Amino acid sequence: MSLVGESYVVGLIGSGITATLSAPMHEEAADRLGLRYIYRPIDLDTIADGVDRAPQLMKTALELGFNAFNITFPCKQSIIAHLDELAPDAERLGAVNTVVREDGRLIGHNTDFSGFAHALDQGLPGATLDDVVQLGTGGAGSATAYALLSRGVGHLSLYDLDRSRAESRARELSAQFPAATVDALTPETLPDAVKAADGLVNATPIGMHHHPGAPLDLDLLRPDLWVADVIYLPQETALIRRARELGCRVLPGGYMAVGQAVDAFELITGIRPDDASMRTHFERLIAAQQGESL
Amino acid sequence: MSLVGESYVVGLIGSGITATLSAPMHEEAADRLGLRYIYRPIDLDTIADGVDRAPQLMKTALELGFNAFNITFPCKQSIIAHLDELAPDAERLGAVNTVVREDGRLIGHNTDFSGFAHALDQGLPGATLDDVVQLGTGGAGSATAYALLSRGVGHLSLYDLDRSRAESRARELSAQFPAATVDALTPETLPDAVKAADGLVNATPIGMHHHPGAPLDLDLLRPDLWVADVIYLPQETALIRRARELGCRVLPGGYMAVGQAVDAFELITGIRPDDASMRTHFERLIAAQQGESL
Repeated sequence: MSLVGESYVVGLIGSGITATLSAPMHEEAADRLGLRYIYRPIDLDTIADGVDRAPQLMKTALELGFNAFNITFPCKQSIIAHLDELAPDAERLGAVNTVVREDGRLIGHNTDFSGFAHALDQGLPGATLDDVVQLGTGGAGSATAYALLSRGVGHLSLYDLDRSRAESRARELSAQFPAATVDALTPETLPDAVKAADGLVNATPIGMHHHPGAPLDLDLLRPDLWVADVIYLPQETALIRRARELGCRVLPGGYMAVGQAVDAFELITGIRPDDASMRTHFERLIAAQQGESL
Repeated sequence: MSLVGESYVVGLIGSGITATLSAPMHEEAADRLGLRYIYRPIDLDTIADGVDRAPQLMKTALELGFNAFNITFPCKQSIIAHLDELAPDAERLGAVNTVVREDGRLIGHNTDFSGFAHALDQGLPGATLDDVVQLGTGGAGSATAYALLSRGVGHLSLYDLDRSRAESRARELSAQFPAATVDALTPETLPDAVKAADGLVNATPIGMHHHPGAPLDLDLLRPDLWVADVIYLPQETALIRRARELGCRVLPGGYMAVGQAVDAFELITGIRPDDASMRTHFERLIAAQQGESL
């Protein structure tokens, strides 16, 4: 074994993250490149006053030799006040999930958005993006909506149980992407919107192991609709399963999970890891976590 | 490359340590064992109020996922008040250079002493230890004196330019090792003590690159005297060079430097690394640092 060059200690700052898959994903990507790399979850739930102390913990970690951070719930917005600079997309999104240091300055990036954009490129190449319906407008949904519009979606319709959130997000995105039409749906207008759409994105938690079910009436699916999900535990949500059965093109959540990790790793090391190898490794991790045999 | 099991982030807390050789020594030992391991110098000189904040930095580092620490100047004594427990030898020595966590408790150890004890075993096997003269009674000298007495030296004579320090150290060690005789020398009594000794240990800084020279009159050396030095930059001090020329058995400082690292690595990981491989690597590091060709 020959490890050369700079070494990397990277922290993930957030709540309830002890079992994050980002740690093995980053570390194995580094191994493949011969980089010395340790990814440490810093679970704020296990630290007294952890959430309040998160900015100070980040600064002390830098003094102690950490190189960079991933940032997750509940700090993606609150960390911004403690950075020196934001990448333009992170600033427009108002959320940061990756912090790197350049010439002593702390720079915030958002690879949730860029990771989903790459996921679209890789998992649904050539898919028609004229008209897309997205379910859910929380943290993940903000990133996917931004990615969809960045990739040229002409008409994006947002649906959320919290209708006012969908409406305010639609207004924000309309202002940021004036060439596109972004509107908010109601339970009454959702079915027709899906019927008219090229693609459907689920950015709600419905379909996770702890939130089983489907985020919409699955009878609305049809074979020429592409279907993306941000959920990766399980990767085969009820939505994705039904879409596959119908012959839809699908983008399971693993693509976004891997995409954000690939982009974060590149920001941290300057080296772009191999997407396909990371995705294969991710599938193995998911399978192991679900106790499936390989 | 296949790295398995627990990963280790280890900090070295001290002043002026950015270029420590402990980092590559620990990391290469881990590589040979297939352990994921990063050793980070935490140079208190580069951190605002670093020395005062050292105990708090250590505690925060543990919250952030550090596994263990080496401790060096000027914190080997001051850190003790912030630990939960001391290994018996560290308590008797009153100095800690390694801190590990066991069941959430912070335990202090001293591998300067144990490293020098192993160095004696490995570098001078079978050497007569009845009567030894040691030059220097500061931090390194405290550890070497304790190691010499632990290894059965019957009569230890301490010399220091600060005569009162030599005398108080002799009193302490006499109390701790009642079977041995420990006394302090003066400039007048030093020559006869060396003439009567089996071995000589230099624990002063005289002979380092920045403190060239010899710590005593080299005409006092003779072929049947073994000679040890704690200095490893350079390994070939004036003292060691002259002793070699005379045919003395010698123990250059690298043995102690490697010995303390071997013991610290074992305390941190539970795995004893291979001494010989670490020593070979250390020699390469020293040679590279001195700009010598290999």
